[in-house]
Amino acid sequence: MALRYLSAKLAQQIDEELMSATGAFSLDQLMELAGLACAQTLATVYKKETHPRVLVCCGPGNQGGDGLTAARHLGMFGYQPVIWMPKPGSKEIYQRLRSQCINMKIPVIAPTQETDTLRDALARSDVVLDAIFGFSFKPPVRAPFDTALPLITASKLPIVSVDIPSGWDVENGNAEGVGLEPDVLVSLTAPKEGSKEFKGRHFLGGRFVTKAMEEKFNLNLPEYPGFDQIVELPQLGESSGRL
Amino acid sequence: MALRYLSAKLAQQIDEELMSATGAFSLDQLMELAGLACAQTLATVYKKETHPRVLVCCGPGNQGGDGLTAARHLGMFGYQPVIWMPKPGSKEIYQRLRSQCINMKIPVIAPTQETDTLRDALARSDVVLDAIFGFSFKPPVRAPFDTALPLITASKLPIVSVDIPSGWDVENGNAEGVGLEPDVLVSLTAPKEGSKEFKGRHFLGGRFVTKAMEEKFNLNLPEYPGFDQIVELPQLGESSGRL
Repeated sequence: MALRYLSAKLAQQIDEELMSATGAFSLDQLMELAGLACAQTLATVYKKETHPRVLVCCGPGNQGGDGLTAARHLGMFGYQPVIWMPKPGSKEIYQRLRSQCINMKIPVIAPTQETDTLRDALARSDVVLDAIFGFSFKPPVRAPFDTALPLITASKLPIVSVDIPSGWDVENGNAEGVGLEPDVLVSLTAPKEGSKEFKGRHFLGGRFVTKAMEEKFNLNLPEYPGFDQIVELPQLGESSGRL
Repeated sequence: MALRYLSAKLAQQIDEELMSATGAFSLDQLMELAGLACAQTLATVYKKETHPRVLVCCGPGNQGGDGLTAARHLGMFGYQPVIWMPKPGSKEIYQRLRSQCINMKIPVIAPTQETDTLRDALARSDVVLDAIFGFSFKPPVRAPFDTALPLITASKLPIVSVDIPSGWDVENGNAEGVGLEPDVLVSLTAPKEGSKEFKGRHFLGGRFVTKAMEEKFNLNLPEYPGFDQIVELPQLGESSGRL
């Protein structure tokens, strides 16, 4: 039984079901585990000895919240994260997650439309955590992200993307060619249709989906090893025997 | 610089500071990470192949909430947890955590004062996760826990206690002899004074204390390895060179 790749609509439905009265999860809980999975994925591939300076690029939505949570965990792991979040969303949880980072002395670049700041920050970083757009992204890419994505690409830094590489269509991938081309992807809950052709190292996080929900949606999730919060998927072209 | 053992008052103060407007953590977040640390500690010492059936004993307070969260994670890890929570607290979060467990088909023993239920459950278990009393416990042990603690002891099952073994005075330990004698202890945030003489395997969880707070309270926490959520402390009588 093959792993299921989710449409944007189905990803939305699963998210809503997790946080419904029945699913009973709070956004705080899901974001904590998602952000931890993102931080652990980055730490698995890029060691803090060689890639200590992580530029965490956060979008205005829940994806950005995952980024803030990941930034805090990366700080706890001994990395030196810096947060770029030019359009902080208004949800109260983002303020709290941001405060938690500030309490850890994680620098938050002041919101600005200027791209110079981002260029400077990229020049001082070893790796990018891309938490800009998630499964609810709909093109086109709007300012300031329309200029940010090419800058991130031009930096030639390794990129770890959360859920779907920013700028990719959730279902059709990077057909338009405006998206980032990450080295690593961490899909949350289940991978999205658009990531089917992703060729880098691909991890799955979000170990909170019940068996009942997995069966209801035919997700066919892989088994997570031991008590890990992430599992690596076979790379495209690899035999699934690797797992 | 030696690891600091916390008084009940100081533990309370740190908890309040984490959840203050400044600390900005929600109970949901802290409990998620605490419960994960408890589950990972149990899974480190007792493998699911040899100890699949975990009886998670939950008290009426936040300690019980940690237990519920741990039960869910243990279920995710492939254990077969069963929850005994005879006096569920009234906080809304406990209802949600309980629902999350029920959604995973984790059995919750119906609340009852009868001890037969607990005796039966113990007879069908391989290990106990003791999340009955935490750092706000004040003697005496009240019903139904006054009869429960001796039953748990009599079962001779291995016990993993959360934060402080149930029945122990938070500062004076098991001087009165009415508490559990666990094999494993997982202290949250920092160990409590009463656990200084604890002789089993001792872990620390709660990787969310900022450097600033650590310095303010002279906690001298050990370094967590890699991106783990728990760290093992040297056992009593061991040289700290082990770490």
